[in-house]
Amino acid sequence: MKTCIIGASGYSGQVLVELLTQHPEVDLHAITSRQYEGKPVGEIIPKLSHIARNLTFSNPSMEELIELPCEVYFLALPHGAAATFAIPLLNAGKKVIDLSADFRLTCPQRYEEFYGSAHPSPEWLARAQYGLPETHSLSWETSPIIASPGCYPTSILIPLTPLLEAGLIQKEGVIANSISGVSGAGKTPSERLLFCERNESAGPYGLPKHRHLSEIEEQLSQFAKEDMVISFLPHLAPMNRGICSTIIVYPQGELSANAVRACWEKYYAGRPFVQVLHEDTQPDVANVVGTNRIDINVTPDARTGRYFICSAEDNLLKGAGGQAVQSLNICMGLCESTGLP
Amino acid sequence: MKTCIIGASGYSGQVLVELLTQHPEVDLHAITSRQYEGKPVGEIIPKLSHIARNLTFSNPSMEELIELPCEVYFLALPHGAAATFAIPLLNAGKKVIDLSADFRLTCPQRYEEFYGSAHPSPEWLARAQYGLPETHSLSWETSPIIASPGCYPTSILIPLTPLLEAGLIQKEGVIANSISGVSGAGKTPSERLLFCERNESAGPYGLPKHRHLSEIEEQLSQFAKEDMVISFLPHLAPMNRGICSTIIVYPQGELSANAVRACWEKYYAGRPFVQVLHEDTQPDVANVVGTNRIDINVTPDARTGRYFICSAEDNLLKGAGGQAVQSLNICMGLCESTGLP
Amino acid sequence: MKTCIIGASGYSGQVLVELLTQHPEVDLHAITSRQYEGKPVGEIIPKLSHIARNLTFSNPSMEELIELPCEVYFLALPHGAAATFAIPLLNAGKKVIDLSADFRLTCPQRYEEFYGSAHPSPEWLARAQYGLPETHSLSWETSPIIASPGCYPTSILIPLTPLLEAGLIQKEGVIANSISGVSGAGKTPSERLLFCERNESAGPYGLPKHRHLSEIEEQLSQFAKEDMVISFLPHLAPMNRGICSTIIVYPQGELSANAVRACWEKYYAGRPFVQVLHEDTQPDVANVVGTNRIDINVTPDARTGRYFICSAEDNLLKGAGGQAVQSLNICMGLCESTGLP
Amino acid sequence: MKTCIIGASGYSGQVLVELLTQHPEVDLHAITSRQYEGKPVGEIIPKLSHIARNLTFSNPSMEELIELPCEVYFLALPHGAAATFAIPLLNAGKKVIDLSADFRLTCPQRYEEFYGSAHPSPEWLARAQYGLPETHSLSWETSPIIASPGCYPTSILIPLTPLLEAGLIQKEGVIANSISGVSGAGKTPSERLLFCERNESAGPYGLPKHRHLSEIEEQLSQFAKEDMVISFLPHLAPMNRGICSTIIVYPQGELSANAVRACWEKYYAGRPFVQVLHEDTQPDVANVVGTNRIDINVTPDARTGRYFICSAEDNLLKGAGGQAVQSLNICMGLCESTGLP
Repeated sequence: MKTCIIGASGYSGQVLVELLTQHPEVDLHAITSRQYEGKPVGEIIPKLSHIARNLTFSNPSMEELIELPCEVYFLALPHGAAATFAIPLLNAGKKVIDLSADFRLTCPQRYEEFYGSAHPSPEWLARAQYGLPETHSLSWETSPIIASPGCYPTSILIPLTPLLEAGLIQKEGVIANSISGVSGAGKTPSERLLFCERNESAGPYGLPKHRHLSEIEEQLSQFAKEDMVISFLPHLAPMNRGICSTIIVYPQGELSANAVRACWEKYYAGRPFVQVLHEDTQPDVANVVGTNRIDINVTPDARTGRYFICSAEDNLLKGAGGQAVQSLNICMGLCESTGLP
Repeated sequence: MKTCIIGASGYSGQVLVELLTQHPEVDLHAITSRQYEGKPVGEIIPKLSHIARNLTFSNPSMEELIELPCEVYFLALPHGAAATFAIPLLNAGKKVIDLSADFRLTCPQRYEEFYGSAHPSPEWLARAQYGLPETHSLSWETSPIIASPGCYPTSILIPLTPLLEAGLIQKEGVIANSISGVSGAGKTPSERLLFCERNESAGPYGLPKHRHLSEIEEQLSQFAKEDMVISFLPHLAPMNRGICSTIIVYPQGELSANAVRACWEKYYAGRPFVQVLHEDTQPDVANVVGTNRIDINVTPDARTGRYFICSAEDNLLKGAGGQAVQSLNICMGLCESTGLP
Repeated sequence: MKTCIIGASGYSGQVLVELLTQHPEVDLHAITSRQYEGKPVGEIIPKLSHIARNLTFSNPSMEELIELPCEVYFLALPHGAAATFAIPLLNAGKKVIDLSADFRLTCPQRYEEFYGSAHPSPEWLARAQYGLPETHSLSWETSPIIASPGCYPTSILIPLTPLLEAGLIQKEGVIANSISGVSGAGKTPSERLLFCERNESAGPYGLPKHRHLSEIEEQLSQFAKEDMVISFLPHLAPMNRGICSTIIVYPQGELSANAVRACWEKYYAGRPFVQVLHEDTQPDVANVVGTNRIDINVTPDARTGRYFICSAEDNLLKGAGGQAVQSLNICMGLCESTGLP
Repeated sequence: MKTCIIGASGYSGQVLVELLTQHPEVDLHAITSRQYEGKPVGEIIPKLSHIARNLTFSNPSMEELIELPCEVYFLALPHGAAATFAIPLLNAGKKVIDLSADFRLTCPQRYEEFYGSAHPSPEWLARAQYGLPETHSLSWETSPIIASPGCYPTSILIPLTPLLEAGLIQKEGVIANSISGVSGAGKTPSERLLFCERNESAGPYGLPKHRHLSEIEEQLSQFAKEDMVISFLPHLAPMNRGICSTIIVYPQGELSANAVRACWEKYYAGRPFVQVLHEDTQPDVANVVGTNRIDINVTPDARTGRYFICSAEDNLLKGAGGQAVQSLNICMGLCESTGLP
């Protein structure tokens, strides 16, 4: 399967290059970057110098992109930019796996509310499939465009979806608190992201209406079969990679930690990338960074009746590039863990 | 005022040494450490070699401690150990500022519930004053023992107390989520606290019933004039110092961010160490580490009706040694910021 | 090939578990740990919970170890302890790959000088092969025991060996300056290795006679065919993994950076794990961590006539576990990069 | 003494704001920043919000600058930019303390060689005094312009100057190896300085001819009374502040570590900011960050005859803003430690 990564020099793009060059069933045919056109990948991303020895960043026109002998295009671009590539590629009959937010929502109004401009293609938005492989069936027959989920949403949807579907938790009162490593903020230079600004630092940002909220709520609502409104409190902490989410939920009727774990075990039976932890171990990003795994656990708070649901993932793997490749594997009919750490 | 620090080699002890050796109205007469008896402080804590040039760790017996010409003894010891020093010192007529949890609660049963053993002196427990200077009146006449608050409780009580007292927020539904630097876990070697274990790591711990919960709830309940039960979710992040707390509350009737800020501004008028931030700036530990200041802010979440209350402090200063010195200043009749950064 | 890792819970041991469980030609039959006997590996090293699903730490007696159906035993133990396992295993006809310093030197006196006790088996010491695969021919026929090189020595020998052998640099005046991540100091809890002690910290240690000096000098001397004495200045910096070495050498007669690079390119032609960088790129640990690669480069200092030789490697992969597996691959007749990142 | 800081928003500027607002004998009258004109300092540098409550960044014209009622102007600007401010201020009879490299060298040709453009004022260059207070006599009567030393030069000159002057070490063969925190690279956003690029990273840069080399060699040569050429190898490590330098020197005739220490103790007798460490303690940036102190030590390498000279300082205090204030104190006739940590 010949593939192309558009926007390959950012952090998600790098992870895709790393994964796809080593993927046994994929031929990474081209990688693009406006900024680094003509540069060998090893010069710009020395970490990849051995893996991607013969790859050079190109900057093709849209016509040239379409003429490439590639079937699948990964878009590792900011929202907005992604759609400008996706639409002509889709119209030309290509398959697209988009890591941006451009095709994650079902509702164009919601897109406009959270992303500040009208959606450029409500038609393709309506046709896109949301690429969380553990909770959605993915197939090229359904749609040629997969919207790969955001990093925060993945960390919240994986633990909550089965519980909502099974009716184990209430739809009201959900509060998700997350801590992210700095790579989640991207690679565009800014004072705020300098080493000395983020090192020895921790605090919330994006309150009260971080863009990922739109996606989290839409997905939760689908599984709850009812509109859900939650609170989402993201924080940055001084580490390169990883997201840890701690989510407060209220039980629907009688519940126990074991019932929660049993629900997860059943729902995720056979899924290699979801790991339900034992009672006495909490998820920690240190344990998942470098893998495509998400660790989840539950702790009941007997004093308040609340349940604390915790998760940890690598924001660039399960939260971005790893998950995109997982979706590709499924659509290609491969084992979903092919080529993934 | 001659003072002594008992247990001066831990992280809180170090901060006390640093502050008291430079305090214009205090003579740091003695510092004790079982482990480092006879060692000059600069040898064990090279950071302090210039400040504390003539200080040497001693390991006096209780009799010798009492015979020291000191009026005030700071206890920078683990809970349990602190009481074994506090009780004889108090009985001998000394004044004690205890940084441990041993005298923070009012109720001995609660102490036993959270700390696992019967309180060694319910009498002195009943007489102790809780040393959060912005919310409690402190005076040697009230009591010779001040229980200096915990680091997490300080970060939660400072923002919530005025709001509860003013009836602006509900007593139900409070959820406090905190991120702490690693120094909060102390200096005793363990695998979990090794650099390579905590670096590039983030996750919750101590769920669902961290010991500080007892102290937070007792204090909140006093100001709320009603028993309060909250959820508290502490996390560790890879930084040396600092705590950032993000607290969810529900308004009592009509409320606005400005009303919250006005309540704080009024309550903390003239208090040098509480800073209410402007609307568009969130607290971050990077901005308070190295100071005795706590930054607080509020963000209303119009979509859910909740309010997000955020705070940031240096866990070793406002959350430990700095606050203890602030209490000393007040009891000595000094300006509360004397000798504090 | 059935293998066993003795001492699998330390940082080098963990890396071996990670590599060997995923190695296509190896069956990791047993992993031992005195401390964690009976514990599943995922409970102690949650990072490995998915990879090493069915592995449990055992603590067999020497007899039981010998009876295991394993051909090759990896020793990831402190020096001294390693020999006590190696000797009976070797005497029983097993093959040993030792990651400690116990069999790296050729001279027992030198071992005693640097390691403070008489070598327990000068016979096996004399028979051991030094396992730097790029500079030594490795074969089970030569010897059943491979002494896997130290992390610092690897970073210094790889760049210097070809230059000494080719007579391009002087044997006098070599000064090696290294910066190591904290994992090089191991996983045994101590105050010095706590997060808060090492974070925001940098400085030299082990001056002037770090133990690795013995090994570096012995190896250099062999290739120089003359006794060499060098200066070695190791430093710790606040990162988990990685070593960067900056080495000062003097040219022997006329020399140029291109001649140095040509020498390396020829010497390491076909070796997958040595990468000679382009003129304008310096080695950085960030680019090699997570790989078994070592990056090397040279910068002539025209003003002084000196040459600056720089290298960077992952201390736990090329500097420890990765290199040990590379040696195994070669002895097994496999491609040397089998199962290595 | 009324003062002004020109370029107050960078890392050195911030440290100056912090020091001068708390200095008992200084009135910080104005702080300038092109970028942040009109912004209160606390908004841009929240860390300083309490200290510098009433300060706002201004952006005065040169005429307005000269008209300010300030006697002393601190320049915390890049080289080149600093001179464009210094020259008119000096011509207008103002005193200048310049933290850039513009007036540190004595030789304009050398400036051009290392900084790439002709020096804009060889006359003022000839008149500037080099502001390393421990080795140079500073006085407004000597000159109205003080060139505050670079961070790396300070860490190398403080230990070497007395040894060269006393003839204890050779003038040949000096090699200085340094590790710096990231703040030394400034606050201008660039990809290389992003958190995720520098975290978990270590490597050399600026080889073989870092700009600071010009200043180090000029100063060493003055004290050696002979032209000296050295090697200088700077590295970046993942920490905010601090420089640690490890310097190789050769003894001139008989020497011992005690003789080196005695030389330092005599030379720096009464100087509060130079600390000679005991034999068994190496300098570490963790011990000096936050202070204006430099720690130095020596380790003889009996095997090679070399001596290892190590130092550690806070690059923003003793290596920049702290040292500039120290120079101001001396010129004002104050105790040199006034207002310094």
